[in-house]
Amino acid sequence: MQEALSHIKQDKHQRILRIQSAALKAIHDYLYRQGVVQAMPIILSPATDPLNHPHFEAKVEYYGQKLHLTKSMILHKQLSLLNDGIDKIYFMSPNVRLEEGKLRESGRHLFEFTQVDIELKEKTKKEFFTLIDGMIAHVFRFVIDECSDDLKALDRKLSVPRLPLKVYESDELRKKHGEHFERVVSEKAKDPFWITNFRREFYDREDKERRGYFHNYDVIWPEGYGEALSGGEREWEHDEIVRKMKERQTDIRAYETYLEVAEKGLIPRTVGGGLGIERMVRFLSGQRHIRDVTLFPRVPGERIVF
Amino acid sequence: MQEALSHIKQDKHQRILRIQSAALKAIHDYLYRQGVVQAMPIILSPATDPLNHPHFEAKVEYYGQKLHLTKSMILHKQLSLLNDGIDKIYFMSPNVRLEEGKLRESGRHLFEFTQVDIELKEKTKKEFFTLIDGMIAHVFRFVIDECSDDLKALDRKLSVPRLPLKVYESDELRKKHGEHFERVVSEKAKDPFWITNFRREFYDREDKERRGYFHNYDVIWPEGYGEALSGGEREWEHDEIVRKMKERQTDIRAYETYLEVAEKGLIPRTVGGGLGIERMVRFLSGQRHIRDVTLFPRVPGERIVF
Repeated sequence: MQEALSHIKQDKHQRILRIQSAALKAIHDYLYRQGVVQAMPIILSPATDPLNHPHFEAKVEYYGQKLHLTKSMILHKQLSLLNDGIDKIYFMSPNVRLEEGKLRESGRHLFEFTQVDIELKEKTKKEFFTLIDGMIAHVFRFVIDECSDDLKALDRKLSVPRLPLKVYESDELRKKHGEHFERVVSEKAKDPFWITNFRREFYDREDKERRGYFHNYDVIWPEGYGEALSGGEREWEHDEIVRKMKERQTDIRAYETYLEVAEKGLIPRTVGGGLGIERMVRFLSGQRHIRDVTLFPRVPGERIVF
Repeated sequence: MQEALSHIKQDKHQRILRIQSAALKAIHDYLYRQGVVQAMPIILSPATDPLNHPHFEAKVEYYGQKLHLTKSMILHKQLSLLNDGIDKIYFMSPNVRLEEGKLRESGRHLFEFTQVDIELKEKTKKEFFTLIDGMIAHVFRFVIDECSDDLKALDRKLSVPRLPLKVYESDELRKKHGEHFERVVSEKAKDPFWITNFRREFYDREDKERRGYFHNYDVIWPEGYGEALSGGEREWEHDEIVRKMKERQTDIRAYETYLEVAEKGLIPRTVGGGLGIERMVRFLSGQRHIRDVTLFPRVPGERIVF
């Protein structure tokens, strides 16, 4: 307990919280001005993001129904945009991902965290890039303006990135830097940047003319801070979704209702992504381990005190 | 499933979401200007609010530890303010409260919802009232300015309440209107108002000179919409906390760590409260049932489709 108390009492928290508050305000201001409406997050659902890596399941039972804790709101984001009057939506969405304990020392994993999770209807990845580029630049500008004393006290220098942020293809980076290209390029970079085309969850759109090419992407923080945002254009056709679920050995029964909606042709064509708040604050405030940007750390495999 | 799809597709959602987005922006703007820092919500903890009414428990296990889904962040709010540099804090905090199915028709219960949960150190309830009065007035002003078309389309008339909001004592209202005074006064009122002094959870401060008098309060929406905010000055002394836990038959073992902190005299003197977002949006947009302000309703006892 003493350790948990000392953690909370650290002097730097007030500075990090002011930086976080400014960054959050900048995000809300920007998205509001862009006409992206904010819906409230959901914690329990019959089906959530399957995720494409090993982790433990988290569910509770309520009136005989098994409900999963949200790993991401991807399915709900798509369903929201099925409303004809809603074209742009975002959620401040806590995600619970019971990760394996070996991720403890990565410095950037928490088993619960919040993402600002955005989805746009009938838009392309290029349009999404433009929206996010503007959001990131606005966050930098606002934090630099509002928190100069805090940044100085934390010995953190930030400069507004030049837009548009650079876009790299994963294949080219892999050829040049090997399997750990993300880390290598993040360490060298001065500004955040995009990488496109990753093989991952079923819902990211695969090119029909060019199998194995995925219209998805990450934003990577520079200076070795790693992943900032993850997203993609989405699959909307029933047969593609089922094919990709099978390829990934996803338990199709868990997605019965979602697949029924897809079969009716109702899943809208969307593009989007989620930006991790704690990872953003870690980068903005220059903290080595993500635990230091939270008062109540939720580090994989660590015992929770409060 | 057809019903859940029809629910999502309702035309009015876009209007309600714009009203919600404006209200949320107004809250963030106001609290930012007041220097209240925003911390990120927690979903899983070893101990959460016990709540003072019947409901089902929700917990998951992770690396051998039982973790409860947050019913409110009251304990975490107190612990945050143990940091010497943090005096005012808020969380946009999803709460999971697995309520009994009989609350289904109340029109204002969801088994998960979000509250803006605020806590101030070394302040009194009067100072908290002033902060919240200002926040509510700012929300009304901003929503009326930004959403006039949407309010009109929903046939909803709002006017900015006169400040300070009225403060009533529960005892006087009970004498005058009987046990259901809250509903009676809410139905008659034109503006939101405060009611003080309720017997409830252990953490709300009971007057030492006047046992049975509690320094806590609710804000009530007018026009019969009922509870908006709930809060209080808090207990901070170990012996008082234990005495009140025993009175309420709270399982003390579940709060061992928290009580250790209290025993060291570390719990700060705070005051605060949480305002329910979905209930606020229900009132602002004039919806009969709270399900209508959510795309994915979580009504007690109802089967969840998405």
